[in-house]
Amino acid sequence: MRCGNGIEARQVNELFINIDPIQAGGRLTGDAMKAIIAYGDGYSVCDNCRKPNRLDYISKPPIAEFHKDVAAFVHMDDARMIPGARRGFQAVAHTYVKKGDPVLLTGLSHYTEFLAVEEEGGIPREIPSDAHHIITPDAAAAKIEDVQREFGRAPVLAFIDHVDYQYGNMHDVTAIARVARQYDIPVLCNGAYTVGILPVDGKGLGVDFVVGSGHKSMAAPAPSGVLATTAERAQEVFRTTKIEGDVTGRKFGIKEPEMMGCTLMGATLVGMMASFPQVKERVNHFDRELSNNKIVVDALLSVTGTKLLSENPRKHTLTRIDTIGSFDTVAESHKKRGFYFSGALSEKGIAGIIPGATKVWKFNTYGMTDKQAIYLADAFVTTARENGLRITA
Amino acid sequence: MRCGNGIEARQVNELFINIDPIQAGGRLTGDAMKAIIAYGDGYSVCDNCRKPNRLDYISKPPIAEFHKDVAAFVHMDDARMIPGARRGFQAVAHTYVKKGDPVLLTGLSHYTEFLAVEEEGGIPREIPSDAHHIITPDAAAAKIEDVQREFGRAPVLAFIDHVDYQYGNMHDVTAIARVARQYDIPVLCNGAYTVGILPVDGKGLGVDFVVGSGHKSMAAPAPSGVLATTAERAQEVFRTTKIEGDVTGRKFGIKEPEMMGCTLMGATLVGMMASFPQVKERVNHFDRELSNNKIVVDALLSVTGTKLLSENPRKHTLTRIDTIGSFDTVAESHKKRGFYFSGALSEKGIAGIIPGATKVWKFNTYGMTDKQAIYLADAFVTTARENGLRITA
Repeated sequence: MRCGNGIEARQVNELFINIDPIQAGGRLTGDAMKAIIAYGDGYSVCDNCRKPNRLDYISKPPIAEFHKDVAAFVHMDDARMIPGARRGFQAVAHTYVKKGDPVLLTGLSHYTEFLAVEEEGGIPREIPSDAHHIITPDAAAAKIEDVQREFGRAPVLAFIDHVDYQYGNMHDVTAIARVARQYDIPVLCNGAYTVGILPVDGKGLGVDFVVGSGHKSMAAPAPSGVLATTAERAQEVFRTTKIEGDVTGRKFGIKEPEMMGCTLMGATLVGMMASFPQVKERVNHFDRELSNNKIVVDALLSVTGTKLLSENPRKHTLTRIDTIGSFDTVAESHKKRGFYFSGALSEKGIAGIIPGATKVWKFNTYGMTDKQAIYLADAFVTTARENGLRITA
Repeated sequence: MRCGNGIEARQVNELFINIDPIQAGGRLTGDAMKAIIAYGDGYSVCDNCRKPNRLDYISKPPIAEFHKDVAAFVHMDDARMIPGARRGFQAVAHTYVKKGDPVLLTGLSHYTEFLAVEEEGGIPREIPSDAHHIITPDAAAAKIEDVQREFGRAPVLAFIDHVDYQYGNMHDVTAIARVARQYDIPVLCNGAYTVGILPVDGKGLGVDFVVGSGHKSMAAPAPSGVLATTAERAQEVFRTTKIEGDVTGRKFGIKEPEMMGCTLMGATLVGMMASFPQVKERVNHFDRELSNNKIVVDALLSVTGTKLLSENPRKHTLTRIDTIGSFDTVAESHKKRGFYFSGALSEKGIAGIIPGATKVWKFNTYGMTDKQAIYLADAFVTTARENGLRITA
């Protein structure tokens, strides 16, 4: 079935249990699907844009109210919707980082945080993760001291991932932010894997910025996201334009340069808005998600030789697993090589594992029903049995 | 009818002839509507992302091919899809403009071009428009000379709007670019109102960059757009990342910092792709659009006292009109004040005029059928008659 010239209609979430690590939290709600059709046209949300002519002031559809709701949702003072979390990193880096400035990242930081630093000519300095792939406040303090020695000053900004993309581990942002505050370092909490998935309390974390991703974790179309901040930092990162035309004398009102003016028109924004009531609710039931994750992880670990690389017990459903000692041993002699594994799962109705991957890989159980989790767990065990791997009870 | 909590389903294009100046070219095609449902989920297009892991290399759906097609469509060597034209301005400004650098804009430049300059600390210098609201190559040359005198050097970059947002006038980008080249100034052609609407030949225009807007003129959801460039400039603005983690030694492959890595995932991109065959075709029939525009403009000018502020004959369907001497004279004594005008039109099934506006306003006839243009023309004349205005034959 095609939905345009050469574009096969995608049905992966209709036909499969999809355990793709980055897709789980971005699946649209039914309301979002309806909304993106109704508001699919480019400037659809601008029908009732009136002075002062800025997206976040529009009241019909209720965009202004939505901005306030999202700020409250992450317990911050102010929020803007943005075209992806990365555009939030970019705006904050652009506000605080100058060429040659040291910037604190971590050994588990996402590449888009690095790109935001690179854009400003900042010098990245990573807080190393410990043996369990956790970023600790002690390591943060030590790294800041290192930077002080190296640069004669503290880092100008810190990016700390709430849950990282590599292991899905949760890091103690509260304690790390407390350390950073002692050196007056503004802290950006990257909540791409948490905002919309589990409760995030920006003020409680003691951070200056919370960034979330609409398409990763808020059941919204891409590119979408949120940059939330405190009243104090809002004056910096959401400062309004000062530029003026030399001939016409034109000024540009309350448009915000870091946002490049208005941000998300149309489908992306209304998709976020339509999903938001369900997103607000679902974060309160993350315990269910973790128990489903445990069913699947336990099944995988019952296959002798499998190692869990993520922290245990799990605090997030994004999970990194090492099957070099189990599923990969089959690949060596299987006629399909490593493709037997994703192939066997695909036949069982499971998608989202990179074809051929049998060594170290990631999956995400977020959004499954209990039944699906049990089915998935059984599919892993069955695939192991079918290929002569040992199962421990 | 609602499509989510407090979100009224939008039906403006189903129930009305919509003459909103910025919405005409961004209305989705049927194929785009199907595609955004199929690909609505956040990372939907990433199902088949393989090494080297960059959006524009994905072949299923045919994203890689689409990138090549779009570059060819505007006759440039290379193209990236971006979250709105403004993000193209930002990337180019960030590449070429340093603090204190003079940047050439025009008296008709869009505010987002100014914001891109402001972000880099550039100093905007506007080429003034002439009495007919046209940016001429002579004025460009004079302004560059002024800048040379003032700064001791030429502007580092020029933003020239192909068709401007204020009057919908077409400017002689070819001749202006020829002038700029004599001073080695890279030229960005802002085709937000032309790419996807009428044929745009970047090499023919002699520019370094062509920027287009998906949601303004390519029948795509927001935010979307294109940044196309020459092979030479591609090495500058699409340079790949060089940053490296100091602890982990991580590098980030062929990700492009100005693009912040991958750009448009999901609905926005696939919406552009699905509409593209129709968009490619429709630019060849812009003459029909202009004849429809003429029907409407002639009708408005038949109302005594109305002035056309845009150039005449029209070269674009975005049109600025002055009705201070006609429709506005009624507003003075009408019990609904200026709201009578948009109200009367709304009753006739016409939307897209700012409620209360009767002095100077804009409309866009793009995408209408002949019948709709005749109907719209008649609606303006009838509204004038109903309110006792004089009509000249």
